[in-house]
Amino acid sequence: MARRPVLEFWYEFASTYSYLAAMRIEALAEAAGVDVRWRPFLLGPIFSAQGWNTSPFNLYPAKGRYMWRDMEREAAALGLPFRRPNPFPQNSLAATRVAVLGIDHPWGPTFAKAVYRTEFGEGRSIAEPAAVHAILVGLGLDADSVLKTAAAEPNKTRLKALTEEARSRGVFGAPTFFAEGGEMFWGNDRLEQALAWATGERAVVAREAAAAR
Amino acid sequence: MARRPVLEFWYEFASTYSYLAAMRIEALAEAAGVDVRWRPFLLGPIFSAQGWNTSPFNLYPAKGRYMWRDMEREAAALGLPFRRPNPFPQNSLAATRVAVLGIDHPWGPTFAKAVYRTEFGEGRSIAEPAAVHAILVGLGLDADSVLKTAAAEPNKTRLKALTEEARSRGVFGAPTFFAEGGEMFWGNDRLEQALAWATGERAVVAREAAAAR
Repeated sequence: MARRPVLEFWYEFASTYSYLAAMRIEALAEAAGVDVRWRPFLLGPIFSAQGWNTSPFNLYPAKGRYMWRDMEREAAALGLPFRRPNPFPQNSLAATRVAVLGIDHPWGPTFAKAVYRTEFGEGRSIAEPAAVHAILVGLGLDADSVLKTAAAEPNKTRLKALTEEARSRGVFGAPTFFAEGGEMFWGNDRLEQALAWATGERAVVAREAAAAR
Repeated sequence: MARRPVLEFWYEFASTYSYLAAMRIEALAEAAGVDVRWRPFLLGPIFSAQGWNTSPFNLYPAKGRYMWRDMEREAAALGLPFRRPNPFPQNSLAATRVAVLGIDHPWGPTFAKAVYRTEFGEGRSIAEPAAVHAILVGLGLDADSVLKTAAAEPNKTRLKALTEEARSRGVFGAPTFFAEGGEMFWGNDRLEQALAWATGERAVVAREAAAAR
């Protein structure tokens, strides 16, 4: 049997549009016959390097106001609950360390979706280790053991390496998808194109190709 | 006969994604039974107010590199030619003044599409009045007369008012669409949703609603 094509899914827990992508990607990838590699990372260091000390949606209020309205519409259209957490962005460090550990465990994607559901589906905090602990318990995992391993040096180093890998490959926001060969797609709006590219449909057929001519 | 719904299409000639929207909007709007109001404006003053002295695609190189690649893919998928003009962004003032005059003339949208075709389809300059003159001549218009009226005080004032109207209504980029009632949509990727909203389909049906559940 031929190996299935792979799509890398780089996500940040503080990212609103990553929530939409995380809730959609498994069903869409399965339908396309594509394997997903979940890759958690931190946008904070990437934003800092270009002089931003918080989300661009906070730095640029007009863009931020629009984003919240757009998220309401998009979530409704996808049948997903949506509530804005306070504060925004949430400190995603504790949850991201667990997600990094989850790369090597079958519960990784399940944990990531549970974090997003708590944060953007219910508008609750994911910032404190206690919040992450509760999510792990909810999944039937040994929360104490997972949190301890996640906070240990090797795992912290791995998160730093993932974030540096994202930056060095040109990631500037989330979600970002990479097809094999390095083709990059940014944003929940590009998930379908990214999957089509991954399956070898290099010339993505546009919905309105005919209309535009 | 009932009045047809209206969608405002706010565009900036220096904006790459506005090019894609300009080439698609008429056929899509006609199919949806929606009238389009073309609204040229300048992003420069809006960017300046938030401390940017050029395109964000120049200020943030990783984002810029991605944008050019994404534009290549999107244009190809839509069957549109695409060449990057040098320099980018082009000074769009002369062309925009003519487009403002074109709001009151049937040649307005035709002129706007011809500018975009020159700039992003052929990668040629639109910055000098001579370039705009040649485009007008190509459309069979009295180029000298149009340019003179476009450069007169009332038309210049109208462009300033349009740009201020865009800013005050929350526009932070282009293209931006407004449906009646003020619902705002940003980006070529939202053209379909904006048209659906304009026709009264308040609950936009997502392609993957089922898949996401």
